[in-house]
Amino acid sequence: MVAAISVDATAARPMVKPIIKFLKEPTSQAWVEQAIANMNTILLDHAQCERKAAGTAIQMMSRYPSSDRLVRELTEIAQEELSHYEQVNQWLDRRGVPLQPVTPPPYGAGLKKCVRKNEPDRMLDLLLVSALIEARSHERLGLLGQHCPDPQLAKFYRSLMASEARHYGSYWVLATTYFDLDLVNERLVEIAERESEILRVLHPEPRVHS
Amino acid sequence: MVAAISVDATAARPMVKPIIKFLKEPTSQAWVEQAIANMNTILLDHAQCERKAAGTAIQMMSRYPSSDRLVRELTEIAQEELSHYEQVNQWLDRRGVPLQPVTPPPYGAGLKKCVRKNEPDRMLDLLLVSALIEARSHERLGLLGQHCPDPQLAKFYRSLMASEARHYGSYWVLATTYFDLDLVNERLVEIAERESEILRVLHPEPRVHS
Repeated sequence: MVAAISVDATAARPMVKPIIKFLKEPTSQAWVEQAIANMNTILLDHAQCERKAAGTAIQMMSRYPSSDRLVRELTEIAQEELSHYEQVNQWLDRRGVPLQPVTPPPYGAGLKKCVRKNEPDRMLDLLLVSALIEARSHERLGLLGQHCPDPQLAKFYRSLMASEARHYGSYWVLATTYFDLDLVNERLVEIAERESEILRVLHPEPRVHS
Repeated sequence: MVAAISVDATAARPMVKPIIKFLKEPTSQAWVEQAIANMNTILLDHAQCERKAAGTAIQMMSRYPSSDRLVRELTEIAQEELSHYEQVNQWLDRRGVPLQPVTPPPYGAGLKKCVRKNEPDRMLDLLLVSALIEARSHERLGLLGQHCPDPQLAKFYRSLMASEARHYGSYWVLATTYFDLDLVNERLVEIAERESEILRVLHPEPRVHS
C-alpha cells in the first residue's frame, strides 16, 4: 500500500492534495474547514465511527467463521478500533463534551448499497467497502493531524494514522487472499468511484465522512 | 459479588455443587461429562460465545450512547471478550481443529425472549441477561478448569475465570447504576429462574450453554 498525504503548507489557504492509492478523489478543502471549525462534533462522530468499525469487523468474523486469516486479521482490527474508541471518548471527556449520539451522514448507507447480495460477491464487496472507509479515514484523520487548531489533539490524530493505514492494507490483503487480483482491482475501481461520488457534495453537518 | 465453586473431589463421580449468587440452579454433572468428552466442540462453541459477547457489548454501547458509565465499562468488557476469542482460537489451532461454525444451543434465543420491548425495561433486561450469561459462563468455565482432562487447557480455563466474574459484576453494577436496587433484584430473580429452566434439560449437542 502506497499511502501519502501532501499538503502545500506554504500557501496562504492550505491546498489539500492527498494522494492515497485507493481513493478516486481527494478530500476537499471545504471539508477541512468544516471539520476544524467543529472539532467537538467531529470527535463525537469519530467515536461512533470507531465503534461501528469494531462492530463491522465482528459481524464479518461471524459471517465467515471458517475463514482463518480473515478471523485473525479482523480480531486485531476490532481490538484496535475499540482502543481508538476509548481514546476518542477520553478526548471528549477532557474537553468536557458529554457523550451523545450524532446522526450519521449518508456515506455509510450509500456505500452499503454497493454490496451485492449473493456470495462470494458479497464478501468481496464487504472487504472493499471496509478498505475504502479505512483509506478515507486515514486521509481525513491525517488532515486533522495537520490542521486541527489544538496541537495536542492534532498529535493524537497523527498517532492514529499508522493503524488506519494498516487497517486498509489488511482489508485489501484479505480481498486478494480470497479473490483473484484482477477481479479485486476491477471491483475496487467501481466502488472507489461511488465512494468519491458520495463525498463530492459536502454534507451540511460536520462529520468524519461528511 | 460472591462467587465460589465447590466440587466434592472425594466422590467416585464428582458431585458438582456450584454456589454462584446469581444462578438459581447449579450446572448438572451431566453437562460436565458431556463437555469434557467433547472438548474440541466446546472450544469451537466457546470461541463463538466470546465473539458474540463482544458484539453484544458493542450493540449495547450503540443503543445507549449517552450512558457514560455503560459505554466505559462495556468498552473494557468487549476488549476482554475479543482477547479471549483470540486465545480460544489459538487453542483450536494448537489442537489442529480448523475454525468452523457450530449451531448455537437454544439458550441465547430463550433468554432473548425475556427482554421486554419498551425502554427502560429493555435496558434493565439486557443488562441482567448479560449478567446471567456471564455468571453461567463463569460457573461452567470453572468446571472445565477443574475437570478438563488436558492440564494446560484446564489451566487456561481457570485463567479466564477472574474476567468472567468481573464481567457479571460489571453488568450487575450497571443495572444498579441505572435502576432502583429493589427493581433490579426482583427482575433478576425472574430471569434467573428462566435461565435455569432453559438449562434443566441437557441439550443433546455439547455446548458451553447446552
